[in-house]
Amino acid sequence: MSTWLLPENIADLLPSEARKLEELRRRLLDRFRVYGYELVMPPLLEYLESLLTGAGQDLGLRTFKLVDQLSGRTMGLRADMTPQVSRIDAHLLNRQGITRLCYAGSVLHTRPAGLHATREPYQIGAELYGHEGLEADAEIQQLMLDSLALAGLSRLRLDLCHVGVVQALFAEAKAPAPLEDKILSALASKNRSQLLPLTAALPVLIRDALLALPQLYGAASMLEVARARLPALPAITRALDELSFLAQQAMGAEVTVDLADLRGYAYHSGVMFSVYVDQASNAIARGGRYDKVGAVYGRERAATGFSVDLRELVTLSPLTARSSAIFAPWRQDTALREKIAALRERGEIVIQALPGHAEDLDEFACDRILVQHGDQWQVEAKE
Amino acid sequence: MSTWLLPENIADLLPSEARKLEELRRRLLDRFRVYGYELVMPPLLEYLESLLTGAGQDLGLRTFKLVDQLSGRTMGLRADMTPQVSRIDAHLLNRQGITRLCYAGSVLHTRPAGLHATREPYQIGAELYGHEGLEADAEIQQLMLDSLALAGLSRLRLDLCHVGVVQALFAEAKAPAPLEDKILSALASKNRSQLLPLTAALPVLIRDALLALPQLYGAASMLEVARARLPALPAITRALDELSFLAQQAMGAEVTVDLADLRGYAYHSGVMFSVYVDQASNAIARGGRYDKVGAVYGRERAATGFSVDLRELVTLSPLTARSSAIFAPWRQDTALREKIAALRERGEIVIQALPGHAEDLDEFACDRILVQHGDQWQVEAKE
Repeated sequence: MSTWLLPENIADLLPSEARKLEELRRRLLDRFRVYGYELVMPPLLEYLESLLTGAGQDLGLRTFKLVDQLSGRTMGLRADMTPQVSRIDAHLLNRQGITRLCYAGSVLHTRPAGLHATREPYQIGAELYGHEGLEADAEIQQLMLDSLALAGLSRLRLDLCHVGVVQALFAEAKAPAPLEDKILSALASKNRSQLLPLTAALPVLIRDALLALPQLYGAASMLEVARARLPALPAITRALDELSFLAQQAMGAEVTVDLADLRGYAYHSGVMFSVYVDQASNAIARGGRYDKVGAVYGRERAATGFSVDLRELVTLSPLTARSSAIFAPWRQDTALREKIAALRERGEIVIQALPGHAEDLDEFACDRILVQHGDQWQVEAKE
Repeated sequence: MSTWLLPENIADLLPSEARKLEELRRRLLDRFRVYGYELVMPPLLEYLESLLTGAGQDLGLRTFKLVDQLSGRTMGLRADMTPQVSRIDAHLLNRQGITRLCYAGSVLHTRPAGLHATREPYQIGAELYGHEGLEADAEIQQLMLDSLALAGLSRLRLDLCHVGVVQALFAEAKAPAPLEDKILSALASKNRSQLLPLTAALPVLIRDALLALPQLYGAASMLEVARARLPALPAITRALDELSFLAQQAMGAEVTVDLADLRGYAYHSGVMFSVYVDQASNAIARGGRYDKVGAVYGRERAATGFSVDLRELVTLSPLTARSSAIFAPWRQDTALREKIAALRERGEIVIQALPGHAEDLDEFACDRILVQHGDQWQVEAKE
């Protein structure tokens, strides 16, 4: 086996792609910053319990494990940064008021999520802690849409869902947890023939509502249909009110709802949002409210946030990363040296040709050249 | 054990530090860019052979190992990015001419290099491939000094060394490899009482030269002393000529030489440089020529480069990361919403106060506030 083959679903980012990722990373972090989100950088490695406490079994299976030579304990490589950021909010900052945090970095997965999925996504996101009101969700939702627009994506579709609807139905039905899990999985795949036997023993009102959920998707006006078809339990009414409010707040996206899209049900505690674009079948951004997560770090805090895989965004964003540059010769000449330094100080890319070589560049297009006229050096168009 | 304790020598970067690291990262990458260095992003994980082929045993001990569930093979977490970048130059780009590459990212070490050293340095650096001449080393040296000046560091000291001197002495002495290693280690610690017995059996000319090396350090003028005290072997003369040339080229630093500073001897093949500042005892940047490394990827290429640990630079750089920001109330008001969007578009940080909370910020100093006058919103100084 050659020493230069990489593991499956692991890849280098070569110049043009890497520059594009860097450009998107900066745009998004700068946008988070003007909204007042403070940057944190949690480590790649933590003790396994810290990474997995409160997380689902799924995250445990996706997490690489290592033995720490210093302590003999098992460590994990982060497979998701949001629990780390919750830990920082709960323990390191430990503030009473609102905390807005953002982050960007690689995470690692033992197995890819799909045939062509990377095992090293580059996760970037923002989290807002300490406010239970919908104003927080509206801010996160807008920041998510703003960020994707800055990446050059157009025709965004924001898909809203709310765990409160199904939670209310389950609470009313008093169904056992294993049955709930099966129903959730049938709802997620909108599989009516699976749902029918699973819900057969439940009260008629609940059963009808669960069977109706897979059809309750489409434009935001579907929320009014849902009001008519679902039982008027207080928690359901509240959930639908919240979705109506957020649908009105969203700017720069077509809004749809899908009351059966319950991926992340175990983790989330209120509204959930996903963003889709025409070019990709999977959501490119996901987020929502997850008030319970901080509890495992000893501090239950209201929390809402979103995240994006920047590697995915690199493939979808129409931005180009190639820049124009100036070629310069190599000479022992103070005037040349000063001219090059001045151009670079102004942000120009100046590539000094080393004696005897051609250059071959992915990232830079050298369309100009430094030419000597008497004791002056001037930038001229390259032929 | 609490679920929020981190492993030893592993730490979060909280807002002010994280922002400072991000700012330094951008400054350095932007500087690399105006010199024409193309950005690459190698993965965190590779098959162990790829990471370690050609590297010393030391790197093997510092590298975390994992089993790949997909292939059953052993993978390693990168402990150094330079071999990865060499692999990219040799195989992915595979260009005939000059290639300039830069990179930035976390690396992981099984054990810290010192009591307080991090096990997760943030390595940033630049590499120039394909040119054997000193022009390449001069460019890398200047880029390194420029980068550190951009980080706000002053009173830089550039320390030069050259593996060619000791290599020439060893070649002349035909000493066995194990003896060479012991001599190298005695030279590195400038331990004359160890050197005396180790060199006892060598030819007098070589012995005297090896015993002289630990004293050959100091200002660049020491190179002339070295010319007088070391044998006039062609390889030694060439090495001293190279050091004289680079000492003349360096701008923005005091230049010193230390002919016995042979850390990285096994890896390097020519000139080596380290940069020191008053506040730290260890070098903050290291680099040099390593023409042999590409050979293990099947392609021997001239190579020179340098790298810095950004986490270290964060502690040494005098830059401050705190920014001024504007507080805004939360209202359902289109004029307010538009005003906030316009301010953010101009790069102002606007933090919207969510109902009923205080805010407590490390990274932002809110010195202004948005106030309503009639149907206008205006930025005013905060009392």
